[in-house]
Amino acid sequence: MNYSKIPLAQTVVTLCKTHDIKHIIISPGSRNAPLTIGFTHDDFFTCYSIVDERCAAFFAMGIAQQLQQPTAVVCTSGSALLNYYPAVSEAYYSRIPLVVISADRPKHLVDIGDGQTIKQKNVYGEHVFYNANLKLDLREEAQQPQKEDVPLFKNLENKVEKLLGLQNGIQAQNETEIHNALNAAVLNSGPVHINAPFDEPLYERVESLTISPKPFKLPDLEEHINEDIISECSEVWSKAKRKLILVGVLPPNSIDKKWLDELAKDDGVIILTETTSNLHHNDIFSGIDKLITAFDTEDLEKFQPEILLTLGGLIVSKRIKRYLREYKPQTHWHVDLYHANDTFFVLDKHIKLLPNTFFEGLLSEPLQISKNDFKPYFLKLRERRRELHDTYLEVIPFSDFTVFDKVLKSIPSGNQLQVGNSSAIRYTQLFQLREDITVFCNRGTSGIDGSTSTAVGAAVASEKPVTFITGDLSFFYDSNALWNNYIPNNFRIIVLNNSGGGIFRILPGHKNTDNFDTYFETKHNLNASDLCNMYGFEYTSATDIQSLASALESFYLASNSPKLLEVFTPSELNDSILLDYFKYIK
Amino acid sequence: MNYSKIPLAQTVVTLCKTHDIKHIIISPGSRNAPLTIGFTHDDFFTCYSIVDERCAAFFAMGIAQQLQQPTAVVCTSGSALLNYYPAVSEAYYSRIPLVVISADRPKHLVDIGDGQTIKQKNVYGEHVFYNANLKLDLREEAQQPQKEDVPLFKNLENKVEKLLGLQNGIQAQNETEIHNALNAAVLNSGPVHINAPFDEPLYERVESLTISPKPFKLPDLEEHINEDIISECSEVWSKAKRKLILVGVLPPNSIDKKWLDELAKDDGVIILTETTSNLHHNDIFSGIDKLITAFDTEDLEKFQPEILLTLGGLIVSKRIKRYLREYKPQTHWHVDLYHANDTFFVLDKHIKLLPNTFFEGLLSEPLQISKNDFKPYFLKLRERRRELHDTYLEVIPFSDFTVFDKVLKSIPSGNQLQVGNSSAIRYTQLFQLREDITVFCNRGTSGIDGSTSTAVGAAVASEKPVTFITGDLSFFYDSNALWNNYIPNNFRIIVLNNSGGGIFRILPGHKNTDNFDTYFETKHNLNASDLCNMYGFEYTSATDIQSLASALESFYLASNSPKLLEVFTPSELNDSILLDYFKYIK
Repeated sequence: MNYSKIPLAQTVVTLCKTHDIKHIIISPGSRNAPLTIGFTHDDFFTCYSIVDERCAAFFAMGIAQQLQQPTAVVCTSGSALLNYYPAVSEAYYSRIPLVVISADRPKHLVDIGDGQTIKQKNVYGEHVFYNANLKLDLREEAQQPQKEDVPLFKNLENKVEKLLGLQNGIQAQNETEIHNALNAAVLNSGPVHINAPFDEPLYERVESLTISPKPFKLPDLEEHINEDIISECSEVWSKAKRKLILVGVLPPNSIDKKWLDELAKDDGVIILTETTSNLHHNDIFSGIDKLITAFDTEDLEKFQPEILLTLGGLIVSKRIKRYLREYKPQTHWHVDLYHANDTFFVLDKHIKLLPNTFFEGLLSEPLQISKNDFKPYFLKLRERRRELHDTYLEVIPFSDFTVFDKVLKSIPSGNQLQVGNSSAIRYTQLFQLREDITVFCNRGTSGIDGSTSTAVGAAVASEKPVTFITGDLSFFYDSNALWNNYIPNNFRIIVLNNSGGGIFRILPGHKNTDNFDTYFETKHNLNASDLCNMYGFEYTSATDIQSLASALESFYLASNSPKLLEVFTPSELNDSILLDYFKYIK
Repeated sequence: MNYSKIPLAQTVVTLCKTHDIKHIIISPGSRNAPLTIGFTHDDFFTCYSIVDERCAAFFAMGIAQQLQQPTAVVCTSGSALLNYYPAVSEAYYSRIPLVVISADRPKHLVDIGDGQTIKQKNVYGEHVFYNANLKLDLREEAQQPQKEDVPLFKNLENKVEKLLGLQNGIQAQNETEIHNALNAAVLNSGPVHINAPFDEPLYERVESLTISPKPFKLPDLEEHINEDIISECSEVWSKAKRKLILVGVLPPNSIDKKWLDELAKDDGVIILTETTSNLHHNDIFSGIDKLITAFDTEDLEKFQPEILLTLGGLIVSKRIKRYLREYKPQTHWHVDLYHANDTFFVLDKHIKLLPNTFFEGLLSEPLQISKNDFKPYFLKLRERRRELHDTYLEVIPFSDFTVFDKVLKSIPSGNQLQVGNSSAIRYTQLFQLREDITVFCNRGTSGIDGSTSTAVGAAVASEKPVTFITGDLSFFYDSNALWNNYIPNNFRIIVLNNSGGGIFRILPGHKNTDNFDTYFETKHNLNASDLCNMYGFEYTSATDIQSLASALESFYLASNSPKLLEVFTPSELNDSILLDYFKYIK
């Protein structure tokens, strides 16, 4: 008795299997029981039970982020699916294939005063790539109390036959809708919504499937290379003397080393990356803000590119966005399979290719290599900044800045690093990370709402041990992330607790008033030890450089439970140390 | 320097004041800084800082629920406002005037790759009564980088004059939109959304207001009595022999005692209430399920009303809904200022009056009083059930059922009772509550997502001490509700911890399998003591009838911190005790 008796539930589960969706995150409920029965009784699926839907969806996103494959969340009717929305929007802007499957009441029970019932149709608006609004199985519909003004079967000669015909029609429509949704998740690499109405009884089971879905075509994922555009690009590229490649969020290994080597030969090419670009080469400029914040007028002008080539997802650095909006390139090309943002208001080309494919086209012909001072000049500047960075670290007291330095250096080889928003990811940009560390962060909407849950999901899906670094507000916001039975024992959390939203001290505005403390910094005296006790994490804390060093010594050793290290830093010092840094490295 | 320099921020704040919105719940952020500055520097407003927007919105709803006045939440751009959505939908279906004010990026920065930016316009779909999509102040707009294809000032002779004219136009439009939204919140008693775009700089202040909003008319809240409908009702009412009044969620003191006395004279009238109806009279049938679950076939037929008169909001009892859909009344009238649900598919009249006004019309003329057996018969049944209820309590072991009995009796006189979803509110229905206890529960969407936050908000706004009873899943789901600096010391929480979602044991389906434990009941070993330690609650627990009695002895005494009592009950016993109850009272 492994199948729900309800054909629509069978169809959803079967088609998820056809589309090779393996990870299913279920939140408890009654309306979704037909789906829960189906998913949990088929060994093809790995199912997870997570109560708080907000966490469940971010957790699913963490899995999908790692596997780069659609991952599904399943919830009951009512406000449950609204709690998915923060993750849905993050998935939309981060281009992560999150499949939301929500159980719904039958249509005639919506908005008539039944509980746990809202207007679920299209509820995620334009933040999903497809809305499959499924229809109730007719064999159920036929059992419903019909309003007198719904003459569903009026004038039908043979009710049974027509009913079967209609049911077949609905079944076929539903199958098509589910296929469309699951295809859209892959073709757009983004979130989709499948809304499935079920009527009682919800718990009945059958021995075998009573449906046999029609075969269908899986989406065509081939890249389509437009030779004209490539050769057009090659021509412009060859002539340009200042070419800036700016890389946003990119999965590890997205660009082959040979292309980076090839690009490095050209003095006219500067590659700017962020830690989330997961790109490493000697000639690359990581740490954008470190480079450009201290630019003088001459540097600002010298740096202005003719061509701006962008790759990957969203960019953390606000300064580079501001800079390039002011010092506009003559042309802007974006290379990405799915989407191009006109971030600098001069986007000319969206080249729908993977970066490797594009570079193969662009660089396979021997190109004119610039010998000029564009890159060499800024490489010198980069070296100077790096040296000053190191000496700055020697002169400053214990603070967020020094903690990030120590912590980032401590991460064991081959670990995956997940980073919270927003201070944490901004600080991380200022440091050189080793090539063996891969980095992820929710930069789609840059919210503080689900960083921990995402990291937990990633830790479950990744073969690498995951270390997650986060600020205190972000951590406490998503504290339910720890209410999760799937956290691997090698998962590590480092909370930088500066008693509030440290980022607000760095932003302009009046500091050191009660008003500021309460409504901007949102000062608190919380610490993570009780949560660790509650959810079975090993807890350690540090308050100075010695205790931090000592805590880190054993922090990554194998253990029988996941661990959390909380580092308390002085909230009043952090902002001036950060602001002074940018003056110091000038 | 108490005002934001940004005119739109001044306008939003000023008009909230004009509309007498006093309570403002702010979540930290930078984009909303202009609003935060304005609200927090004006003593007219009582401001609260709550980090987790999901909790903030439910907290605001708790305040609005108590004051029956619009209450505002204010957040930054991006996914922040999506975290409000669960509370928005609850407010929509519970008819609570929640005003969402979200800060947004300027339009030209949406969907071009900036952080913390989503499609905020109309994001709550049809779950709000008004969307005020405000426009950026033009003086800011004029500073924006214009795309070349936006010929904003083309061919303008006198730019300054035109600019001023345009700005005045935008200012007037924005004022109108804000008025419309705030009026809609009152006129519909429901949620509205004001989306306000701001551009940097966000933190600049000025000494005095630079706007002077035009005067406007406050909404007309007079009831409009339609004498024809009333007399039509009177006529039908007089003739009917079986009249059922079914009362859903209703604020305390919504119906004068004299009307209940008047109705009690009529043997043809049965009034069914729930604890959330806040209605008390000797002749009233509280505890619907207690009465009707054990109906035999004869009772079922005898109980079928000719007229069904419903009052108030949503109804907890599923059984009465099922019953009335099968044993349909001849006519159904709903009396409510705002909205009528066609819950039983036979709604004939929506009478847009307050219950008192309606009863004054209906009952002021001497009506024909039925002398029949409708009410007397069921009053006898009610007495029998009550007696059996009491003897049942004597024979059963310690369980959810006995705990509810003890706990509900323990609540001090004049307390307000807030109840969580869904087991907790269902159990509460089975007990007779004293008249001096007022009862509230989020029955709009019946979610488990914000019950604690709502109770905390209610405790802040109510003059009465608040006791909140909740199940464990609901409590842990909304654990961030305790991250709140405003919880009064007399606030009391009672958590019934049966290690999972006990309600799923009561529903049909296979029990006692790993699959059931994990995906339906979602078994856990959590307790609330660590959260209490973290958030400064005094914690006590009970595991049997003696420890419960002893804990309750001192539980309501004055204290220097709020308190939580966690009662552990045996999850495997609870469901059979409840199911047997309905057989026993037959």
